Amino acid sequence: MKTVNGKMRELGEKRSVIREIFEYAKVRSAEIGAENVFDFSIGNPSVPAPDCVNEAIERIVRETPSVLLHGYTSAQGDGNVRKTVAEYIRRNFGVPLTADNLYMTCGAAASLTISMHAVASAGEEIITFAPYFTEYKVFAEGAGCTLKVLPSDGKLLPDFSALERAISARTRAVLINSPNNPSGVVYGEDVLRRLAAILEAKQREYGKDIYLIADEPYRELVYDDNMVVPYAMCYYANTLVCYSWSKSLSIPGERIGYIAVNPAMENHQAVYAAVCGAGRSLGYVCAPALLQRVVAACIGMTSDISVYKANRDLFYDALVSYGYEVIHPDGAFYLFVKALEEDASAFCERAKKYELLLVPGDDFGVKGYVRIAYCVAPETIRRALPAFEKLAKEYREGKE
Amino acid sequence: MKTVNGKMRELGEKRSVIREIFEYAKVRSAEIGAENVFDFSIGNPSVPAPDCVNEAIERIVRETPSVLLHGYTSAQGDGNVRKTVAEYIRRNFGVPLTADNLYMTCGAAASLTISMHAVASAGEEIITFAPYFTEYKVFAEGAGCTLKVLPSDGKLLPDFSALERAISARTRAVLINSPNNPSGVVYGEDVLRRLAAILEAKQREYGKDIYLIADEPYRELVYDDNMVVPYAMCYYANTLVCYSWSKSLSIPGERIGYIAVNPAMENHQAVYAAVCGAGRSLGYVCAPALLQRVVAACIGMTSDISVYKANRDLFYDALVSYGYEVIHPDGAFYLFVKALEEDASAFCERAKKYELLLVPGDDFGVKGYVRIAYCVAPETIRRALPAFEKLAKEYREGKE
Repeated sequence: MKTVNGKMRELGEKRSVIREIFEYAKVRSAEIGAENVFDFSIGNPSVPAPDCVNEAIERIVRETPSVLLHGYTSAQGDGNVRKTVAEYIRRNFGVPLTADNLYMTCGAAASLTISMHAVASAGEEIITFAPYFTEYKVFAEGAGCTLKVLPSDGKLLPDFSALERAISARTRAVLINSPNNPSGVVYGEDVLRRLAAILEAKQREYGKDIYLIADEPYRELVYDDNMVVPYAMCYYANTLVCYSWSKSLSIPGERIGYIAVNPAMENHQAVYAAVCGAGRSLGYVCAPALLQRVVAACIGMTSDISVYKANRDLFYDALVSYGYEVIHPDGAFYLFVKALEEDASAFCERAKKYELLLVPGDDFGVKGYVRIAYCVAPETIRRALPAFEKLAKEYREGKE
Repeated sequence: MKTVNGKMRELGEKRSVIREIFEYAKVRSAEIGAENVFDFSIGNPSVPAPDCVNEAIERIVRETPSVLLHGYTSAQGDGNVRKTVAEYIRRNFGVPLTADNLYMTCGAAASLTISMHAVASAGEEIITFAPYFTEYKVFAEGAGCTLKVLPSDGKLLPDFSALERAISARTRAVLINSPNNPSGVVYGEDVLRRLAAILEAKQREYGKDIYLIADEPYRELVYDDNMVVPYAMCYYANTLVCYSWSKSLSIPGERIGYIAVNPAMENHQAVYAAVCGAGRSLGYVCAPALLQRVVAACIGMTSDISVYKANRDLFYDALVSYGYEVIHPDGAFYLFVKALEEDASAFCERAKKYELLLVPGDDFGVKGYVRIAYCVAPETIRRALPAFEKLAKEYREGKE
């Protein structure tokens, strides 16, 4: 007889491919030295938090009375913090967002699970595009929904005709992630306009609300001058933005983010109430109080993104010169590279001989690609490049 | 047509009675001055965090490299933190717990939702005893379960024969809370032994695991010399302990706690895996990294509990001397007082005339009682006592 929830046990026991590689890296490092293992598996920021983070922590701790500082904030987040963040969003993206449209969360994963539980009911469907962050499936299923994964085009932008065919009366939300993990692709204005037009037409066709959930932890990690990732709310009324400061401030362990409910949404008050209710139901009493105040104090700041840009340029240019096909990443800190044989897992195994640890793209919903996380020391990339060159040569020679 | 998840919307819109009173207190304070409103509604620690908390924050921030400090910990919590906490539990309660039996959480609510999702499946039943913390129902229903509330005896200890009758093939867990919110009652060893005996017999009868979930945020808030709240694991193998540092360290806003899975449990590895899976499914990536290290640095420390003890003694003795019937609280920071008329809500309305803000016990599953939170400044109690005396007199004279 079943002694625990079998689905939860399976989720706890089945290590993700990334975690498997991570464990392998530890073992291999012990054998041959960490400096000889090139681990590109983990999307953990390699750049320290900007000084303002620790300065804010120390100042807030010194200046705020303990009972206020460490006490409960309201469930949706401290009022002043929400005001500061809303003001920032208003100023930067031109949407009339107020504190009452913002709900502070314990990071992007919480933003997503809360949003899904809030808008969707059991049996409904959430649509996303491949490649996609693997945990989306876990989160959607946790909310009793199905995650339907649609293909992307050759540039890894959404396949719009697939979207038109896929939306049904069961569809409750479309989930996008730009800049994208694992591809680094950024959706431009044109993509958001087409998405919005399709969703609006389908809402009318089915007479139901279909939400756009924009997962944006990599928003600030873009590398072309003056590039601003379009803010999904500006294009589609029924939008929820899920944000996290994990990557922009290099504080992924601190678990702090937000959900912004578009005030242009007809039902924005009902959706916001459902967000509060879902947070309550999942056990999120409030986002960590000290960190709420810290991100407000650091609003608009980021870690030194130029390190990632330099890594991208170095890595992308070198791989292309060795003959690899690489999706050009405008943001995030991943390269999505075509494997040199059909089976990406077999390719990753062969790369291991050169101590290159890559993640096969199959888990992200795209076969034949690998993900390379370049949030590492630039030195690691420089020292790994000859191995990538040899690997490409081996495939070329093997073919001949 | 339904535009959001109706259940979640309702949870977000329906204010709790406590929140209603809190809002009333704000309005009333503006009218007559905060010093003239006696708000006993909220269970928010009134004693500052011990110095070690802010000292640990400042030291850890200064001494730990940023990428390590603010980076992801493993999902179950930082290894060294779990080792420190496990060692403390081992030393204090004599159970052979290791880091591998501990899962760090974002506070008690997260500990509870994760534990329920881990052990129970949709359609199963979780049993608790009145009076109980109102959010239990929300959490159990979020896990697809029913919360079955059983009566307590006159001393607000479990009604064991009701328990024997209530357990069925659908029962997956029994949830206890000692020291209790709202009654302040502490379960002694005898209570835990009888609970364990019944659960063991019922496990055999139904051939299934029935878990004891011990919700213990008030563990250290006990006021009799040398009193140690019995550790449920010592009495029953299938026990999960849900803990939070919110009350012991006065840091409820920081969201940090743990789930301890009894290593004496036959299926402890499966249960632990299910806990990890449930945390993942609900969007808890890891507990806040800085705070994990802070509670480990402050292990065994508490806020100045003597303030609560003095409050209890002052308040309890005075109310009893005015003729109130009060459940003697051995722990937590609540008095559970018999209302002076049958309808506790009507009694609370009458108390309002004296600016006394109390919470009717109905929401906690016990009619005819009110909860008084005494985590307030001693001065507030002293100044409120004459009002309690007048209120009692009014009822006495009304009766005559």
